[in-house]
Amino acid sequence: MKKIVGIIGSLRKDSIHRVLFNEYKEISNDQFELIEGEIKDLPLYNQDIEDQPNSVAALARKVASADGILFFSPEYNYSIPGGLKNALDWISRDDDKPFDRKPAAIIGASPGAIGTARMQYHLRQVGVFLNIDFLNKPEVMVGKAYDKIKDGRLIDDGTIQFLKKHVEAFSAHIEN
Amino acid sequence: MKKIVGIIGSLRKDSIHRVLFNEYKEISNDQFELIEGEIKDLPLYNQDIEDQPNSVAALARKVASADGILFFSPEYNYSIPGGLKNALDWISRDDDKPFDRKPAAIIGASPGAIGTARMQYHLRQVGVFLNIDFLNKPEVMVGKAYDKIKDGRLIDDGTIQFLKKHVEAFSAHIEN
Amino acid sequence: MKKIVGIIGSLRKDSIHRVLFNEYKEISNDQFELIEGEIKDLPLYNQDIEDQPNSVAALARKVASADGILFFSPEYNYSIPGGLKNALDWISRDDDKPFDRKPAAIIGASPGAIGTARMQYHLRQVGVFLNIDFLNKPEVMVGKAYDKIKDGRLIDDGTIQFLKKHVEAFSAHIEN
Amino acid sequence: MKKIVGIIGSLRKDSIHRVLFNEYKEISNDQFELIEGEIKDLPLYNQDIEDQPNSVAALARKVASADGILFFSPEYNYSIPGGLKNALDWISRDDDKPFDRKPAAIIGASPGAIGTARMQYHLRQVGVFLNIDFLNKPEVMVGKAYDKIKDGRLIDDGTIQFLKKHVEAFSAHIEN
Repeated sequence: MKKIVGIIGSLRKDSIHRVLFNEYKEISNDQFELIEGEIKDLPLYNQDIEDQPNSVAALARKVASADGILFFSPEYNYSIPGGLKNALDWISRDDDKPFDRKPAAIIGASPGAIGTARMQYHLRQVGVFLNIDFLNKPEVMVGKAYDKIKDGRLIDDGTIQFLKKHVEAFSAHIEN
Repeated sequence: MKKIVGIIGSLRKDSIHRVLFNEYKEISNDQFELIEGEIKDLPLYNQDIEDQPNSVAALARKVASADGILFFSPEYNYSIPGGLKNALDWISRDDDKPFDRKPAAIIGASPGAIGTARMQYHLRQVGVFLNIDFLNKPEVMVGKAYDKIKDGRLIDDGTIQFLKKHVEAFSAHIEN
Repeated sequence: MKKIVGIIGSLRKDSIHRVLFNEYKEISNDQFELIEGEIKDLPLYNQDIEDQPNSVAALARKVASADGILFFSPEYNYSIPGGLKNALDWISRDDDKPFDRKPAAIIGASPGAIGTARMQYHLRQVGVFLNIDFLNKPEVMVGKAYDKIKDGRLIDDGTIQFLKKHVEAFSAHIEN
Repeated sequence: MKKIVGIIGSLRKDSIHRVLFNEYKEISNDQFELIEGEIKDLPLYNQDIEDQPNSVAALARKVASADGILFFSPEYNYSIPGGLKNALDWISRDDDKPFDRKPAAIIGASPGAIGTARMQYHLRQVGVFLNIDFLNKPEVMVGKAYDKIKDGRLIDDGTIQFLKKHVEAFSAHIEN
């Protein structure tokens, strides 16, 4: 069974992106195994740190051995969250080039209407450098997310159906 | 005398952006005082951290009281370094909105030809949200930077002259 | 009285951006005069055309003599409409640099939720080169625009109030 | 033999991008046939034009039947040339969705150092909407192009070798 690493861009324990990660995991568990790649224990990237920290090594190995990557991420200040970008910066320095040619997709949600569009195009541009093979469509930008989540579960049927379609598209993408 | 906070996007001790910061400080010391706003001790931004860390508070106060901001930053993976973005994410949550209406400019340098262009437009987009008043021109994108620095000093006369012109433009910008 | 040139990015006669232009003109007529800068008769930009076409000259003069510029524009294919970009390309070659230092703002509307965000950040990047002085906030991205327009008039009170606030912010911006 | 449509973003007869098109055609003629998709006769896109103009139909059919697309394009004002964007806007309205799933790549050159980077990421963002399958690497951004062209021919051996590598990568990309 294919193994997908999900990276959650918000470090908050109860983030809506963790809810989406859990929901996506449940929806997709017939197609692939979704496991988390944790970013919260990484130090700030600093070229003076000569030995790769264990937290970085663990994440890099996970990404390198994955069949695909899913980013579940909020938008912070019209771009990629610093913590997520920090993880990408660390992994980009790993000798194995863990992201190289990996199929990937982005799942974003926001309280407002725009649903992380601005973050997603920045992340796609990063992907050109890292040679990530991003799925074009469907794009997932869940607006008004707080109205669609209750008690840590996604309760909006339209969004659940849409994620199911996304699982199909992403499954096809990782097969190519 | 006006006080400008310079934020260095690379955490490396001997980074070329620290060299540029020092050079810029020397060139501009008749026009304004350039002091550093340090970002290397900030934890990763996490909404679960309820009390503002001291390192964040110190930086936020410095930015809030500054007459302008200068970003000296490399480009990492075609975007803003995670450590710098992390600092922006923290400060954006400060009640004072420290970046609001601040005049600012970007100084970038890279070993290759493109000189951080991709990072700079991402940072400008972040500035729309934070309501930063970025100088349009001249843009500073120093290419082939390693050829222009020796023993921790900028030795390329063209670049030095260009920075002098930038100091003039930035001085006018903070007066408006 | 200050004179503002409004450029409508859609060439369609009954475009929602023409409706917004008309509405904005009415709302702002105590603060400034809003006149249209037409782009629909411009040929495709071609460096082989040695003499500036009359349609280009007319628009360039209008822009050069304006106190500010308002772009009313849809998003086409996640970026600036070709016709609008074509006008910008022509005017950028005018010896007077008509856009240089002009205060400007962007008004966008779309049938979907995102309301032209992707176009707006591309247009802002163009503005760095042209040295346009774009207002940061408030950003105008009217989503679900067809529900808010009837018989060629804007009927959504929330949007009308928001445009009034924008007129205030833009009036202050052109005074600086 | 595979057929690739090359779209030249500059309308100028002697543009450096036409030189690159010709050179690329010669280099790649064992791998695929490169034919031009002309954009210079298209009217400005206007939704009021109900019947598809012949020039648009011809280009749309060419793109739809191609095995891949190559964009040879300058950067105008930090973004996509208006004429090229206009062609994309027209073709995006064709019922066949001619760009859908097409493998594609971008070849850019400029007199300055940056070599069209800013245009290329805007074009890639457009490609997300049109569902274009852009090659990530190698990116082609030929700087100081006027020094590398003489009498309508590319004379810089480094650039010629680089284009040969690009032909290999693009050939592999269209096979997938």
